[in-house]
Amino acid sequence: MSTIKHVAITGGTHGNELTGVHLLKYWREHPDEVARQSFSTELHLANPKANHLNRRYVDQDLNRQFGLNDLNNHELCGYEQNRAKALNALLGPKEDPRVDFVIDMHTTTANMGMSLIFNTDDPMVVGMAFYVQQKMPHATLFYDPNERLDDNFLTSLGRYNGFLIEVGPIPQGLLRADVYLQTREAVQHCLDFLELWNQKAVPELPSEREGYRFLEKVQLPENEAGELTAMLHPDLQDQDYQEIAPGDPFFMTLSGETIPYPGTTPVYGAFINEAAYYDAHVGLSLMEKITIPYRR
Amino acid sequence: MSTIKHVAITGGTHGNELTGVHLLKYWREHPDEVARQSFSTELHLANPKANHLNRRYVDQDLNRQFGLNDLNNHELCGYEQNRAKALNALLGPKEDPRVDFVIDMHTTTANMGMSLIFNTDDPMVVGMAFYVQQKMPHATLFYDPNERLDDNFLTSLGRYNGFLIEVGPIPQGLLRADVYLQTREAVQHCLDFLELWNQKAVPELPSEREGYRFLEKVQLPENEAGELTAMLHPDLQDQDYQEIAPGDPFFMTLSGETIPYPGTTPVYGAFINEAAYYDAHVGLSLMEKITIPYRR
Repeated sequence: MSTIKHVAITGGTHGNELTGVHLLKYWREHPDEVARQSFSTELHLANPKANHLNRRYVDQDLNRQFGLNDLNNHELCGYEQNRAKALNALLGPKEDPRVDFVIDMHTTTANMGMSLIFNTDDPMVVGMAFYVQQKMPHATLFYDPNERLDDNFLTSLGRYNGFLIEVGPIPQGLLRADVYLQTREAVQHCLDFLELWNQKAVPELPSEREGYRFLEKVQLPENEAGELTAMLHPDLQDQDYQEIAPGDPFFMTLSGETIPYPGTTPVYGAFINEAAYYDAHVGLSLMEKITIPYRR
Repeated sequence: MSTIKHVAITGGTHGNELTGVHLLKYWREHPDEVARQSFSTELHLANPKANHLNRRYVDQDLNRQFGLNDLNNHELCGYEQNRAKALNALLGPKEDPRVDFVIDMHTTTANMGMSLIFNTDDPMVVGMAFYVQQKMPHATLFYDPNERLDDNFLTSLGRYNGFLIEVGPIPQGLLRADVYLQTREAVQHCLDFLELWNQKAVPELPSEREGYRFLEKVQLPENEAGELTAMLHPDLQDQDYQEIAPGDPFFMTLSGETIPYPGTTPVYGAFINEAAYYDAHVGLSLMEKITIPYRR
């Protein structure tokens, strides 16, 4: 069984998500809160330049730059592509990382509450998700499986992978105390879980839980000039993790006409009207409801 | 009595407030919706470059650059300072404007619902506010008096001043159908009112209405290094236009301690946790509740 020796907590991976940035500042002054007996905890502001500019990124979304091939491709030399290589040198290298586990703090403008995003069915990671949800029952499990070496998220730098905490809704570029407090609490539970894991003292957890698995992103309608012609339908706004049935209101044109969901089977929405995806005209993610097993 | 011949509808004065930007696009393709018998309507994207960059502004907040002295000061040559001069040439000149009235569309990340912001007690402008509120009773009257020539808002370019429609909450950089539809409706009522005004057919309006008058902006607490040390208190978040009494929870430090409101008389909050004011560490505006008379 894996033993965790080094944990990295990261924030500001997206520079205008200030919750994690300010938690890092707070913990630098109060390191006892993130210290545990059995492992060391380090704190890293992932994208200081984007944070300074109050932008999601300078050249590219940093949280898509951590695939092994991209890390080793020195023709990719945008700001975040270099920053990913620097973080790989600091926490990795990805093939044989120094850091065992990465907890990355994010926020969303969508009404996703506290979403626990993980990319592996590794029992330690699934156990952490179940443990945090036991402590914070309103949290939602968001499963997006990827092979660690191919995975392009920052969390995939950890030897035993990582865990992404995504809280919303909150506009970009500010702090909300409720979001700050929830994120702070969730990180505490993650660290507690890793401590219990190392001590082989993880408490009883359910054998399975309901969650959502990422299917695909959906584009907003646009005209031939590439301009938006419709928005998310108001009936869908803020309805993250609710069922979308065939024929349900999906988009609304700028003149106010409803466009129904064209799919043939029910799905569930997430990242509904996420501002960060707007420049690419992505309207939402479609998810399927699944049962997630915990195989200790 | 003033007669309105030329009306300008402006949006994207803040480049990342997309509601107005997309309404302008829509009306360009559907000009009948903003056409009225007794005046011409023109549509202007106020800050195209900031909109292209999906930022509030390039160099300065455009909606603070329209004071007469600043318009005539050619040492002020930042991007928005020049853009203000160009808009002054297009709509003004401020001392003797071509355009009679300016309707400027904004959004806020604060929970201000539909706020009708006006800077004058001119009966036409107050009448418009009362008329829109009669049609949309949830709208709030936000009064911030300024002399037109000194006033630094875009709306002050209009010969008979202008009217600012501010709708929230909405994150920066996206469209919400509900906010879009509300703004679209409010602009229709403004245009209808101007048409009735020209025809001397304004319907019966109340002789007074409750509203809020701007008092001052309040800074968030910071340390000697200029870093935030506290956030808006969660009890105050989203409580725009609610009373704040002496001793009420006001800020919350990063460690979770409550800082009470230090004032000695009750006030009302607005622009509570507005993301656009965060770089200047402004936490909210304080308002007083007032009775606004309509003296036709």
